[in-house]
Amino acid sequence: MTVTDEYLANNIAYASTFQGPLPLPPSKHVAVVACMDARLDVYRILGLKEGEAHVIRNAGGVVTDDEIRSLAISQRLLGTKEIILIHHTECGMLTFTDDAFKAAIQQETGIKPGWAAEAFPDIEEDVRQSLRRIEQSPFVTKHESLRGFVFDVATGKLNEVEL
Amino acid sequence: MTVTDEYLANNIAYASTFQGPLPLPPSKHVAVVACMDARLDVYRILGLKEGEAHVIRNAGGVVTDDEIRSLAISQRLLGTKEIILIHHTECGMLTFTDDAFKAAIQQETGIKPGWAAEAFPDIEEDVRQSLRRIEQSPFVTKHESLRGFVFDVATGKLNEVEL
Repeated sequence: MTVTDEYLANNIAYASTFQGPLPLPPSKHVAVVACMDARLDVYRILGLKEGEAHVIRNAGGVVTDDEIRSLAISQRLLGTKEIILIHHTECGMLTFTDDAFKAAIQQETGIKPGWAAEAFPDIEEDVRQSLRRIEQSPFVTKHESLRGFVFDVATGKLNEVEL
Repeated sequence: MTVTDEYLANNIAYASTFQGPLPLPPSKHVAVVACMDARLDVYRILGLKEGEAHVIRNAGGVVTDDEIRSLAISQRLLGTKEIILIHHTECGMLTFTDDAFKAAIQQETGIKPGWAAEAFPDIEEDVRQSLRRIEQSPFVTKHESLRGFVFDVATGKLNEVEL
């Protein structure tokens, strides 16, 4: 039995009390971009209720072309107007470098990834980097609010990063 | 007052009962890739507890280079061994085409995105497409389980898609 099987059993319990369907567009017109880190239960951290906000997540919570794609769809087709970026303390992205990570893959597989790993040495500076990437995008322009935060995995608090 | 401010107030309540920090590596060695849709509270749908699994999300839950990047980091640096893909019924990605979406952006801004919007006409087929993209990647090879599902937004149930 895999962990996936355990989670599927949990889903049966979830569905037994499920009340749906909710409308497709996010009712609070918010999009969140956060790190994939297992300790970030974004719905609980922000008190999000189902149906309120898009939640976009990847390694680091960095803004690459795929987050620009997701945010463009979120804003242009589904009407979101606020963006919340969340990085966090003790992030795995602080523990390696792009060069070393890609060299290890190349050594094992013979193939060097054509993408950046997006490792970073400073959390707050990377929040600013992600904010700037959104600000300079010609495709993500419909927001009225764009703010970035560092989630403290020791305290559960969001601390704002100023540009 | 923005919705972001409301969520920050919720976060103060969250932090007041927070118990941390948990370890960095996902304790259940699982990575989830899911759509950003606001109705998918992935932690509740799967019964995930904080610290158990990476959660990667984007528009559609599709696998692009950024999900390969995140999964490669998840597996190679943080030891995940199972992948769960989740698309869902009534997805926004079924409601448009790449060509129309990109033409609208080009008409408004003068600039055509260099990326695919990844719209799709068939949910199950797109789950299979994402499964195949992982299977053919030279960088995501450490998993012992890889399974894809469609979440039903009317019932709360996960229905498996066979390759």
